[in-house]
Amino acid sequence: MGFFSADIKTINDLFVHMLRDIYYAENQIVKALPDMIEKSTDPQLKQGLQTHLAETRNHVKRLEQVFRQHDEEPSGIDCPAIDGIIEEADDVAGDVSDKTVLDAALIAAAQAVEHYEITRYGSLIAWARQLGRDDCAALLQQNLDEETAADKKLTGLAESRINRAAA
Amino acid sequence: MGFFSADIKTINDLFVHMLRDIYYAENQIVKALPDMIEKSTDPQLKQGLQTHLAETRNHVKRLEQVFRQHDEEPSGIDCPAIDGIIEEADDVAGDVSDKTVLDAALIAAAQAVEHYEITRYGSLIAWARQLGRDDCAALLQQNLDEETAADKKLTGLAESRINRAAA
Repeated sequence: MGFFSADIKTINDLFVHMLRDIYYAENQIVKALPDMIEKSTDPQLKQGLQTHLAETRNHVKRLEQVFRQHDEEPSGIDCPAIDGIIEEADDVAGDVSDKTVLDAALIAAAQAVEHYEITRYGSLIAWARQLGRDDCAALLQQNLDEETAADKKLTGLAESRINRAAA
Repeated sequence: MGFFSADIKTINDLFVHMLRDIYYAENQIVKALPDMIEKSTDPQLKQGLQTHLAETRNHVKRLEQVFRQHDEEPSGIDCPAIDGIIEEADDVAGDVSDKTVLDAALIAAAQAVEHYEITRYGSLIAWARQLGRDDCAALLQQNLDEETAADKKLTGLAESRINRAAA
């Protein structure tokens, strides 16, 4: 089934459709993160991913609250984009032997996941406001803020690794 | 073939691998944008996507320059992430009938593409610097700057649509 193969006629249809897309994505990330945590070797990276797993579980709950506020049943739809991003991230774990290189690859994979979520939450917040649903927008903004912060932490980790390598 | 199924042992292997990933991605985007341009109805959106198509063609050339500077043949590898993102974008074109809703969906699709590129260029620039390849980093930074600017323009368009809708 295609992403937009549902009959989308209004901004509300688009909003609910994308809410299902990101709900599926967040649930897939909850499943994918433990493997990334296990494979990571840098203690700061491992801790950062663990913190983000707890945040991601909370994002799922917050999305369920948005569904309920909007009188919709929480449900997901297939999202080939996050499936592809996670497929790339999964492959890291098996095929990079050097620990430093593996950590660098895991940081990149996690940032690709973050950026997918950042762009989807950005669109969802814009549509929620357009629909006059500032209550939904406020909840989605909390998820977005945590994704943005997680991405910045990962950038900081990548940079500190470079500084260490240069030292 | 998995994303990291090549034998990646060093940051240089990771850098070249990701360079091939984004080279494939930019080429796929060159193929995908004309359909998005044709389907878009808002004149500013259409013009913005047209400008970005010209930029994207230039990104491909700049990546070829990075390959050459790094003594590598320009070549792509399959990238399930961008394939998934474009699959979602493609589906927009066929299944949303209302013009305003279609434009909103196209803006979201284009921003998902931009964010994938932004995160990949961010990693590539970090690794280029780690490898002491500031010449490659400078070229990649030019692509990143244009992706970031394109994403900001799309956010501006999404917001002006909301303001119009609210008026």
